[in-house]
Amino acid sequence: MSFSRVTIIGLGLLGGSVGLAVAENLPDCRTSGYDADPDVRQRARERGLVDEVFDSPAKAVADAELVIFCVPVGAMEQAGAQISGALRAGTIVSDVGSSKAAVGEALRRALPQATVIPAHPVAGTERSGPDAGFAHLFRHRWCILTPAAGTDPQAVERLSRFWRALGANIEIMDAAHHDLVLAVTSHIPHLIAYTIVGTASDLEDVTRGEVIKYSAGGFRDFTRIAASDPTMWRDVFLTNREAVLEMLGRFTEDLTALQRAIRNGDGKMLFDLFTRTRDIRRSIVEQGQDDARPDFGRGDHES
Amino acid sequence: MSFSRVTIIGLGLLGGSVGLAVAENLPDCRTSGYDADPDVRQRARERGLVDEVFDSPAKAVADAELVIFCVPVGAMEQAGAQISGALRAGTIVSDVGSSKAAVGEALRRALPQATVIPAHPVAGTERSGPDAGFAHLFRHRWCILTPAAGTDPQAVERLSRFWRALGANIEIMDAAHHDLVLAVTSHIPHLIAYTIVGTASDLEDVTRGEVIKYSAGGFRDFTRIAASDPTMWRDVFLTNREAVLEMLGRFTEDLTALQRAIRNGDGKMLFDLFTRTRDIRRSIVEQGQDDARPDFGRGDHES
Repeated sequence: MSFSRVTIIGLGLLGGSVGLAVAENLPDCRTSGYDADPDVRQRARERGLVDEVFDSPAKAVADAELVIFCVPVGAMEQAGAQISGALRAGTIVSDVGSSKAAVGEALRRALPQATVIPAHPVAGTERSGPDAGFAHLFRHRWCILTPAAGTDPQAVERLSRFWRALGANIEIMDAAHHDLVLAVTSHIPHLIAYTIVGTASDLEDVTRGEVIKYSAGGFRDFTRIAASDPTMWRDVFLTNREAVLEMLGRFTEDLTALQRAIRNGDGKMLFDLFTRTRDIRRSIVEQGQDDARPDFGRGDHES
Repeated sequence: MSFSRVTIIGLGLLGGSVGLAVAENLPDCRTSGYDADPDVRQRARERGLVDEVFDSPAKAVADAELVIFCVPVGAMEQAGAQISGALRAGTIVSDVGSSKAAVGEALRRALPQATVIPAHPVAGTERSGPDAGFAHLFRHRWCILTPAAGTDPQAVERLSRFWRALGANIEIMDAAHHDLVLAVTSHIPHLIAYTIVGTASDLEDVTRGEVIKYSAGGFRDFTRIAASDPTMWRDVFLTNREAVLEMLGRFTEDLTALQRAIRNGDGKMLFDLFTRTRDIRRSIVEQGQDDARPDFGRGDHES
């Protein structure tokens, strides 16, 4: 059932972390890798992100049982096309992209001979590149698989076991539903964070220096997310457009209602919302999806 | 120059932290305290947040040289009125509230005999109450003083030294400018976080359980802020209405532009903004206003 040979295409934060996690958790599995950027390939060799780094994607996948694309979602189809001639029929092809319907279609178009099972480990940091990865990235995080109807269940189970071995919990869902859920829990939060950081940079009556100095009042939390990889996030918004616009519409309606409450001095409405939102934090911490320490455990909170 | 007797009114996260920070950094300064909630007074005694907890605010301020109000900004005037008869003329009265123009007016109305110097240490966590405070809360954080024109410069210097002794950096600015700056760096981020967490709780097509499970994609960062004290934040929005509405208008304009870019598939506009916002994070980390570790140093990132 387990894979003895896995190829990782794209050796940034996600690809590098998959490679390091395999080395730590699946010692019998050989990994090969490729990245379009020669500098990244060089760093990947130096850090040992995979067992062997190849200078051509076709060579990297030569005898792979599983190929995982860890490139921006807008680059999936082209990356797939590059290995199309070298990929054996029936090879399991997966990815780690943040939007799933578009990616599934792209990989199936590029690689009709493969068993495509799109995947999304809901994990990451604001860092990117070959120095950003670490073996524990996927521990206690959810990895969502979105196989199309009719996908070989054994292949899905095999991929599930692979991710469980790296520390992840598995959920299987429809790609369209994934895209709606992640629009709320990931894409809209990123869009809002990018926006407010942009707004704050462009003010005339408040200087950039002031924004930075007084960021500990809440703003700094948003800057972490807004430091995420620009190419990756551009592609997420372009490939998950409908769900993002739908959720953005709901957010804007709610924000407008709150704006009206502030204008009218409606303290009760504000208080009621602010009380209700506390519970969600509690559940997230209880379910191990965030650090229980105040302020994410930043700095030193012992007195 | 230094204070030998300081009274803290309100013994939650901020008041408790001031008391603990004084005990650690100014051993010659005696602290007294009061809280309107008897349970909080009891916990304050058990934790030793101040040297002496009184059951009446008038008794607590009897021989104070400095009184610091650490109550929600909407409660300042009433809290001031309660000590008005007991306060000696010339006593320095300050606070830790997040909006400053309204608070300065409220305290001056309630305590015409006092030297009122509003203050705002830009520091906090999502926790509240008498168990939340810790002595290091103000270290390397900025404390903004907003004395009215004509305030005794010696009193301002005395209060500045007090806050520096607790580890804070001091900035002095006009109350109206403070309210505009903090609307951007703190109030709007909180409003947005409360809104998106509310939006996510109210969806029908995505369950609350899904929102919690997949929160590591970015959403969880917002839930921390949205777990902050509801009374405190209701009052901030009601007392800093104009600056909040002004900044909210700019944010909404920018968000609408981004929405249009997504609808039109304008990848260049998205990419340009997402690249620009990375720099601000870098500056915030360089200036010691946030943790340099990825993901705020959450969990274990060693491999």
